[in-house]
Amino acid sequence: MKISARNVLKGKVKAIAKGTVNAEVTIEIAPGIDIVSIITLPSVRSLGLKKGAEAYAIVKASNVMVGVPHSPR
Amino acid sequence: MKISARNVLKGKVKAIAKGTVNAEVTIEIAPGIDIVSIITLPSVRSLGLKKGAEAYAIVKASNVMVGVPHSPR
Amino acid sequence: MKISARNVLKGKVKAIAKGTVNAEVTIEIAPGIDIVSIITLPSVRSLGLKKGAEAYAIVKASNVMVGVPHSPR
Amino acid sequence: MKISARNVLKGKVKAIAKGTVNAEVTIEIAPGIDIVSIITLPSVRSLGLKKGAEAYAIVKASNVMVGVPHSPR
Amino acid sequence: MKISARNVLKGKVKAIAKGTVNAEVTIEIAPGIDIVSIITLPSVRSLGLKKGAEAYAIVKASNVMVGVPHSPR
Amino acid sequence: MKISARNVLKGKVKAIAKGTVNAEVTIEIAPGIDIVSIITLPSVRSLGLKKGAEAYAIVKASNVMVGVPHSPR
Repeated sequence: MKISARNVLKGKVKAIAKGTVNAEVTIEIAPGIDIVSIITLPSVRSLGLKKGAEAYAIVKASNVMVGVPHSPR
Repeated sequence: MKISARNVLKGKVKAIAKGTVNAEVTIEIAPGIDIVSIITLPSVRSLGLKKGAEAYAIVKASNVMVGVPHSPR
Repeated sequence: MKISARNVLKGKVKAIAKGTVNAEVTIEIAPGIDIVSIITLPSVRSLGLKKGAEAYAIVKASNVMVGVPHSPR
Repeated sequence: MKISARNVLKGKVKAIAKGTVNAEVTIEIAPGIDIVSIITLPSVRSLGLKKGAEAYAIVKASNVMVGVPHSPR
Repeated sequence: MKISARNVLKGKVKAIAKGTVNAEVTIEIAPGIDIVSIITLPSVRSLGLKKGAEAYAIVKASNVMVGVPHSPR
Repeated sequence: MKISARNVLKGKVKAIAKGTVNAEVTIEIAPGIDIVSIITLPSVRSLGLKKGAEAYAIVKASNVMVGVPHSPR
């Protein structure tokens, strides 16, 4: 399946922390650049996510905000 | 201000495409890695966004999905 | 690619209305049941979306709210 | 109250799985078509959600992505 | 309909700016406190939104971030 | 940092309820007006959130829906 989400960032699973309904999954998309995701536990299982595995962090463009450094402006 | 969003990725504004209500802003967060954002036009103005300027792509962890390559898994 | 989004609903593209930055895409997932999506124009193009084509409406579970009928409860 | 969300899909509560902060609620909107939602526990209580009860799955159009089958296109 | 969104803030429509697909709607929920929303044009029409009319700003709790003042903390 | 989110509402932390992955944070932005947020536990810690502390509720405009009283009902 190809998806409309504009941001599909390839990386490796760095950590998975499981809760009761959700899990926090950290994906390293470049050296020193991590993306943290909260997904449901059944998704962790159905994707077969494991530390070290190849994975994509996927974000719809309308869910990305922009920030600028506060001061000199 | 410090924000709860887990993903705050530093980069440079690479492109700004303006519509009538929204604008599409592309931020390069690493060589070859772009993040595309849709924000409102007043935000583009109030942040003073310009091509080449330093900027952050900000994403709440609950808005990040995870994908895995389809087959050999 | 397999994705963590819990809701991946198969259907057919029923309508595409284009704006300047975004487009509204309607997908019929069952007789009489439509799902409306707002995605960016470049996504409409890169997916090759056309009226009548097979498509999926994809929604992360954390973006689904629940409602109940107001009164007799 | 009438709401701006473009997607208001009528169905029946099929399952409720409770965590410590959130709950996962599954709503069957047509035979064989389920929508999974993550909402907070207080919402489950205040809506009086119960298995078998009538309920709506509600999604803002900007939170719906579109996918297409990968290959033959 | 009663909805699971934890944030339902009553106010008055202060401004509506229409684009080609979306509109920006400003709701004043308390003196000096405005909430800005981006919804689709068909929603503006189907809700019959007009400047001065009573309206609610509705936000799912998982879409609210938290910030703190930067320095002295 | 200055952020593109159109809704940045100043208030005080009224309550924090912690789960295993997420926490529910209530911010009072005006007398009698609370905003409820779900953020991850590490964010609660890194922001140093405490009951009574000054905080902002931050919402991207595309995540705000609009409702109207049902009237003729």
